[in-house]
Amino acid sequence: MRIAILGTGSVGRTLAARLIELGHDVTLGTRDAQATLARKEADALGNAPFADWAAANPDVTVRGFADAASGAEIVINATNGSASMDALARVGMEGLDGKVVLDLANPLDFSRGMPPTLLVKDTDSLGEQIQRAFPTARVVKSLNAVTADLMAHPGNLPEAGTVFVSGNDADAKHIVTTLLEEFGHQDIIDLGDITTARGTEMLLPVWLRLYSALGTPAFNFKIVR
Amino acid sequence: MRIAILGTGSVGRTLAARLIELGHDVTLGTRDAQATLARKEADALGNAPFADWAAANPDVTVRGFADAASGAEIVINATNGSASMDALARVGMEGLDGKVVLDLANPLDFSRGMPPTLLVKDTDSLGEQIQRAFPTARVVKSLNAVTADLMAHPGNLPEAGTVFVSGNDADAKHIVTTLLEEFGHQDIIDLGDITTARGTEMLLPVWLRLYSALGTPAFNFKIVR
Repeated sequence: MRIAILGTGSVGRTLAARLIELGHDVTLGTRDAQATLARKEADALGNAPFADWAAANPDVTVRGFADAASGAEIVINATNGSASMDALARVGMEGLDGKVVLDLANPLDFSRGMPPTLLVKDTDSLGEQIQRAFPTARVVKSLNAVTADLMAHPGNLPEAGTVFVSGNDADAKHIVTTLLEEFGHQDIIDLGDITTARGTEMLLPVWLRLYSALGTPAFNFKIVR
Repeated sequence: MRIAILGTGSVGRTLAARLIELGHDVTLGTRDAQATLARKEADALGNAPFADWAAANPDVTVRGFADAASGAEIVINATNGSASMDALARVGMEGLDGKVVLDLANPLDFSRGMPPTLLVKDTDSLGEQIQRAFPTARVVKSLNAVTADLMAHPGNLPEAGTVFVSGNDADAKHIVTTLLEEFGHQDIIDLGDITTARGTEMLLPVWLRLYSALGTPAFNFKIVR
C-alpha cells in the first residue's frame, strides 16, 4: 500500500523501515523536507542524524507533510502529540479526505516537569480531536502504548502482548488490523469507537511509571482473559 | 493478621471470605453496623442481601468504621471511591496512625453518565489524597484494576496477570505484597511512591472499555517483558 508517515523521529523511522521491509511504498512527511534531510546532528532525543538514517534507508522518500500524504492510502500520525494537530492541518481537510489516519501519538505535556502529564484526557482524547477536526478522515487510534521497536517488531518480546484499535469506521479498523498483523501483532482488541482512545491514551501514565520501575521501555500490556 | 475491611459491597465481602479462608481475623467496617446487618434486600448493584451473606460467613464480624479499624494491623479501603474519604474520616487520624492502609478504591464519577469518568487524575490520585489526609497512615495502593473475584482468586484466570503496589513506606509495601502472594498473585510490580497510583487509577478508563468489548470483567493486565 502507499503509506505516508508524518514524523521523522524514532517512531516514524522505525515504522518506515518496517513497512519497506514488508513491501509497502513509504513516504515520510516532515515540516521542511530540505531541512530534515540536511540534519547532520542527533536530535534532542538522541536519534541519529536524519541524513545518516536517510542514506541507510534509500527506499524511503521524504516530503513536506502535504506532499507526503497526497498519494497515500494510509496516513500514519507519528508526530509528537503536542504537534499533531498542526502537522495534520498542514495536510489539510482535502488531503485527509476519506483516508485512513492511523494515530499513534500521545498528547503529552512536558512543560510541568517529569513525568509528563496528558494535555487531554478522560473526557476527550487526541484521537477524537483529530476525528473532529477532520470529519471525513477515518481515524483509527492504535499502538500508542508501546515503544517504537515493539510497534514494528512485537516478536521482540518473549510472548505476544495485546494491542488495541479504536475508531468509528469498521473498514478503516480492518485495514489497520491487517497492517498490525503484518507487523506480527497476534492479539488485537477492537475497543469500539474513537472515544475509546481515551482509555488507551490514559495508559501512558502507568506506562511511564513502568518504564521507570522496569528500567526499559521493552514491555507491553497483555490482556489475560 | 487482624484485618479491617471498610466497605460491605462485593469487594469487601469477597476479600473478607478469602482472608478468613487464609486464616486471618477479619472485621468488616460499615457506616451503621445494625442497619447493614438488617438488610434483607439486594443492594443497588445486585449484591445479595447483606443479612444472607453475613449468615453464610459467621466468622466475619461487622462493626462501625472506627470500631472495625481499632484493633486492626491492616485497614483495607474497599469503599466506593467517591465515599472513601468520608469512611476514612470516620476512622480518624488516630485510628489510622501507623497502620497499613491498603487502598483498592477507584475515584469514579458516575454523575456524568456512562462510562464513569475519574474524579481525580493525572496530577493527583485518591491514593495520594488519602496519604495527605492521614499522613501517619502507611498507604499502599493496589488491586484497583482487577475485579473483586480476581483480587482474591487470581488463579481463576488461565495465566497469571500482573498487579501493582504504590506507596511511600517500603515496609507497608512488603506487608501488602505478602498478602497479595497469599491470595495467589505471582507477578507484583512495585511502581514506586504513592504518586504512581495516578497511573494505576488511570487504568480504569481502558478497563471499563475492555469490560464492554470483552463482555466480562474477568481479565487482567499482564506486563509482558
